[in-house]
Amino acid sequence: MINIPEKSKAAVLVEYGKPLEIRELPIPEVEPHAILVKVEMAGICGTDIHMWRGDLGGRVTLPLVPGHETVGIIVKLGAGRTHDCAGQTIKEGDRIMWAHVDCGECYPCKMMKQPTLCERRFDYGFNYSLTGSFAEYEYVVPKADVVKIPDGLTNEEVVGVCCAFRTAVAAFERLHGLGMQSNIVIQGAGPVGLYSVVLSNICGAGKTICIGAPSLRLDLARKMGADEVINIDDFKDAVERKERVLALTDGKGADIIVEASGVPIAFAEGLDLLRRGGRYLVVGQTSAQGIISISPAVVVWKNLEIIGQCSADISHYYKALQIIKNNRQKYPFAEFITHKYRLDEINIAFTSMQAGKDIKPALVP
Amino acid sequence: MINIPEKSKAAVLVEYGKPLEIRELPIPEVEPHAILVKVEMAGICGTDIHMWRGDLGGRVTLPLVPGHETVGIIVKLGAGRTHDCAGQTIKEGDRIMWAHVDCGECYPCKMMKQPTLCERRFDYGFNYSLTGSFAEYEYVVPKADVVKIPDGLTNEEVVGVCCAFRTAVAAFERLHGLGMQSNIVIQGAGPVGLYSVVLSNICGAGKTICIGAPSLRLDLARKMGADEVINIDDFKDAVERKERVLALTDGKGADIIVEASGVPIAFAEGLDLLRRGGRYLVVGQTSAQGIISISPAVVVWKNLEIIGQCSADISHYYKALQIIKNNRQKYPFAEFITHKYRLDEINIAFTSMQAGKDIKPALVP
Amino acid sequence: MINIPEKSKAAVLVEYGKPLEIRELPIPEVEPHAILVKVEMAGICGTDIHMWRGDLGGRVTLPLVPGHETVGIIVKLGAGRTHDCAGQTIKEGDRIMWAHVDCGECYPCKMMKQPTLCERRFDYGFNYSLTGSFAEYEYVVPKADVVKIPDGLTNEEVVGVCCAFRTAVAAFERLHGLGMQSNIVIQGAGPVGLYSVVLSNICGAGKTICIGAPSLRLDLARKMGADEVINIDDFKDAVERKERVLALTDGKGADIIVEASGVPIAFAEGLDLLRRGGRYLVVGQTSAQGIISISPAVVVWKNLEIIGQCSADISHYYKALQIIKNNRQKYPFAEFITHKYRLDEINIAFTSMQAGKDIKPALVP
Amino acid sequence: MINIPEKSKAAVLVEYGKPLEIRELPIPEVEPHAILVKVEMAGICGTDIHMWRGDLGGRVTLPLVPGHETVGIIVKLGAGRTHDCAGQTIKEGDRIMWAHVDCGECYPCKMMKQPTLCERRFDYGFNYSLTGSFAEYEYVVPKADVVKIPDGLTNEEVVGVCCAFRTAVAAFERLHGLGMQSNIVIQGAGPVGLYSVVLSNICGAGKTICIGAPSLRLDLARKMGADEVINIDDFKDAVERKERVLALTDGKGADIIVEASGVPIAFAEGLDLLRRGGRYLVVGQTSAQGIISISPAVVVWKNLEIIGQCSADISHYYKALQIIKNNRQKYPFAEFITHKYRLDEINIAFTSMQAGKDIKPALVP
Repeated sequence: MINIPEKSKAAVLVEYGKPLEIRELPIPEVEPHAILVKVEMAGICGTDIHMWRGDLGGRVTLPLVPGHETVGIIVKLGAGRTHDCAGQTIKEGDRIMWAHVDCGECYPCKMMKQPTLCERRFDYGFNYSLTGSFAEYEYVVPKADVVKIPDGLTNEEVVGVCCAFRTAVAAFERLHGLGMQSNIVIQGAGPVGLYSVVLSNICGAGKTICIGAPSLRLDLARKMGADEVINIDDFKDAVERKERVLALTDGKGADIIVEASGVPIAFAEGLDLLRRGGRYLVVGQTSAQGIISISPAVVVWKNLEIIGQCSADISHYYKALQIIKNNRQKYPFAEFITHKYRLDEINIAFTSMQAGKDIKPALVP
Repeated sequence: MINIPEKSKAAVLVEYGKPLEIRELPIPEVEPHAILVKVEMAGICGTDIHMWRGDLGGRVTLPLVPGHETVGIIVKLGAGRTHDCAGQTIKEGDRIMWAHVDCGECYPCKMMKQPTLCERRFDYGFNYSLTGSFAEYEYVVPKADVVKIPDGLTNEEVVGVCCAFRTAVAAFERLHGLGMQSNIVIQGAGPVGLYSVVLSNICGAGKTICIGAPSLRLDLARKMGADEVINIDDFKDAVERKERVLALTDGKGADIIVEASGVPIAFAEGLDLLRRGGRYLVVGQTSAQGIISISPAVVVWKNLEIIGQCSADISHYYKALQIIKNNRQKYPFAEFITHKYRLDEINIAFTSMQAGKDIKPALVP
Repeated sequence: MINIPEKSKAAVLVEYGKPLEIRELPIPEVEPHAILVKVEMAGICGTDIHMWRGDLGGRVTLPLVPGHETVGIIVKLGAGRTHDCAGQTIKEGDRIMWAHVDCGECYPCKMMKQPTLCERRFDYGFNYSLTGSFAEYEYVVPKADVVKIPDGLTNEEVVGVCCAFRTAVAAFERLHGLGMQSNIVIQGAGPVGLYSVVLSNICGAGKTICIGAPSLRLDLARKMGADEVINIDDFKDAVERKERVLALTDGKGADIIVEASGVPIAFAEGLDLLRRGGRYLVVGQTSAQGIISISPAVVVWKNLEIIGQCSADISHYYKALQIIKNNRQKYPFAEFITHKYRLDEINIAFTSMQAGKDIKPALVP
Repeated sequence: MINIPEKSKAAVLVEYGKPLEIRELPIPEVEPHAILVKVEMAGICGTDIHMWRGDLGGRVTLPLVPGHETVGIIVKLGAGRTHDCAGQTIKEGDRIMWAHVDCGECYPCKMMKQPTLCERRFDYGFNYSLTGSFAEYEYVVPKADVVKIPDGLTNEEVVGVCCAFRTAVAAFERLHGLGMQSNIVIQGAGPVGLYSVVLSNICGAGKTICIGAPSLRLDLARKMGADEVINIDDFKDAVERKERVLALTDGKGADIIVEASGVPIAFAEGLDLLRRGGRYLVVGQTSAQGIISISPAVVVWKNLEIIGQCSADISHYYKALQIIKNNRQKYPFAEFITHKYRLDEINIAFTSMQAGKDIKPALVP
């Protein structure tokens, strides 16, 4: 039995753009079906930086405890919570992950079976309570879906599952198969892009081509299975990049493109890089606000299929963890975590993340 | 045995924007597998008007015999041609339709099994020969796929299959089922839009809503099964139209939208009218050139699926004909043909079509 | 506010094959999220008869209150229950339906998103409590998914949704679209078969052929949209039936078959009636125990796709209700209910149902 | 310019069960679009042995030149044949493969776009002419679809594409994606089974389990990526094999099974090994004749999807070749060819093949 303190330190965002404050928040009673975890590792996401800057608008009320990518170790299980969503028993001391909470009762949850579109979703990292992960302890609410982390995987290997990897898995699932030996272009070399490189590889792509920058990330793209990389620092112009993609695809263009850059204009470039009959998986535009120009005729003329994927559910966490477990000899998943910080270094971490040098920094409270 | 003359009258486009000339062209020898038909009825398509005006650019070399929507009666079958593509025997005197010609050998034809994307497609109505339908006789080339027209259907009922209807069938097939009782919005009330209304109805839509103008077309939309129509002359603003669509869909937005207006900006409006998790079938932008502004974030945020469909193959002609045969008691398919002209009235027909008063005019040479 | 009595009459199955006893059971307190309903109408299902006879084996413990097809009127809503799963508000006096209860937490519920395969499913009509519908009042448990019945539909029209119709909807949804104008053979003319005839019709079949007996049911099949019926009293032999199906399908065989007869050997006959490249939807074998002989080579040689569908979830109830609402002018849905009985006539109802003369009898407690 | 002789040696099957005779057959004129090839390597298939024994019944008329798995080097291209079906130019001296010939005009070819179901298919290896591959030269008919073999691949690596591998590719394509990290059981360790192991691996399976014998083949299964093998010489009983599969899949059963054994009873065992909601790909029953007993209720109760795949088209040859090209560093594809024989050793090869010791023997004429 682990001894539970009354309070937990947590990083609190009090004012946009100002340093977060370390405060002590009360640890709540563990309701039936809820779970109290000790935070083992918490990833810092681009969204956290956007929130810090005040870019997220009306979704946010201050103060709050940010953080939504967490590896937690179970400290106390609420009554009735005995298994994870894969049917595995869970107990104190086990490491788990959990998804944002869908209500399980609304039209998208029940009629469409698309819980990521839940009309009453509860998000971690948006409240002034221990439901954010930049803290010593985190409270997993009764309705949360959780999944146990397989033994033997390191925190560094798996923490990226909580946001970028499970989203990429959800997106690829929408494609219903890559088609055998398709040539796939990944736009972007951030976490979503790099995990998409992995997925492209293990799901039967012919050639995987990653477009992005800087070299550091493209080097990791290669380790993650990219057959070719196109550095936008070298191929600065969309015309040059198109020539390169055509050269790498027998003049045909990409069979499939995954948009993982988050840059609005990348969408127009993607439409141009696709072959006739191609498919476009758009994942990276979640926080993007930009307006771009396109010719809708291209959608018809090229006979395209375009799929947008927003977020993911617990099944995608599970599958991402299985992928890591089954392929960790081949791909250095731990290299996604380029820096680690203590909880009281969070403002250093945020500043460094904003400067764009990390792939993904993580807190180890 | 039908007596074949040596020459056939044909309407020839000699100079853009000028009246077509009626000339006499030699009727060719019927090669093995080719077919000579007498033109029973030839639909005039918006594309013909675009071509006449010179809008199609580099695809066109003058002079030529336009026309690609034809009901033909077999005058002579080339050696070895005994069946249509549905396995039905064909003989002189039978009425047939035929598709643009795919090569059956290239990457899209063979590797992708998408013959509409054939890299060496031969199109009817683009050459200075009797391979255009604004003529007394037409020559169906050896590689053309043909399908017999079921007995008992009138020319007026079926001629629209050759372009608008088969395209709508091909598009709906891409959806892999409507999903039960989906609310479907059709943008546009031209032939593609009206046939989409029919398809929406017979494939299990919940509510079919047609947005378009003028009243004449929307009246036909109702006869073709539209539960609701939104007249853009009454709902002039996109905001008003959105309110109306939301009111008709319990505040959710459309489950599925079919873009059949051909107006570039309709694409942006469609993205806005879709519910989260919705699907967008884009068909009508074939000749469109316009550039519009969109926010690609909406594709991700709404978790959309967007499908562009260009043209159709012989299987879609066959299915369209089956639909007419099986549902002609219910829907007045013949009402699509609002005017009929003789071959020597073609310039009157073009002028009237350009003025936009017809739904579809047809030549009866 | 409706006055709630302390007890409710209920028909209790005490001993297999013996008459059910009418007993008074205590009406429970309505927990948060639960619902107490007054039973408006309860369908009697073939499964009830199987249960009565003792055919269901280890799934059953006596005594119990049977009945799982219910139209209920809300008497009391538990705290926190304000909406149905389509997002519609519900209140006392509304009519509702509800599905068997999935746990929402296990591997099939969460990882596969197939709640009908839930490992901890709670079924109505299997317990000694007011969770069976052959009673005055029924208790809808807190986790149950419910859907409101559209105003204006009669109980007779909708009660069949609760079992046969929602199952047929779930099955057809697995097909991902009929394909345009497919020829569909429905094996069986019981409720599942007849509802499949409706679905075949409204989802775009070419020709719908119903094989079954007796004439009474086949007459209803015609009203429900069957283009052709094959009476097995007239076509006694499988060879004759095959000849008839071939004659009705241009010698090709069925594009799609729906097995809704529940007779094991029908599966072998279905494999034989399918065309090469055909699809087989198997729905009706739920209670079947029989072993039959087949040649698995036919699955390969004919390039078949075979889909088995077991049960349904709340989304299928909702869609079935929408179908009735949108198509009740066309199809006489109320004719499924061929007899109505009071609660104290339940043993007469069971005896009549067993004799096989009804399509579906219903209790009106 | 290669010098073409007037005659070619060929192995002729004159009488069932008797030694084949080596005869000289005239080399035909190369018609437009046809191709004459020199046979580089010809695989011997189980079907050839069945044919030799007289098992194929009415499909066969003697005498004939067997052989349908061929790597050929182009000796002469007929007029008009300039590209393969992937759009690559071909010329004398190039190595190619070709598929059985579909007519491109019938209902399955055109309406269903399933050329493998062509009603007028022409098969290689069934005629008394140089359209069988057990010969020095082979004649590829004008309508044949061909694909160029990528440079750098050995004949040993690719010859298995012509029958087993392309069939496995076609089958896996029917699944529309494996689903991420599915546990896949392959029944059978012959060529189709072993190639299915490869496909399972490169398309994103979680765990691949191969059931078969003898050890030699299971050793190759491991090299081809099987995570687990179940030797039926050790696990002789279906009950034991089921226990083993359950132990390897967390007690769930297989998510996907590929039947590649060709033994009829394997189909019943497969139904038993599948988890609820599982999918079954049946490929190996082409020549099987046996009748087995099953309970069709299992298809419904388990909510199964069963797909039968017969043969393959040229797109599957191309994809199989791409897979070899892109993965030859990882998998020892050449090890499928366990023995090589000269043309005049064909009777030794047949006898050895019948004895079942080879995985696949090949002729090098």
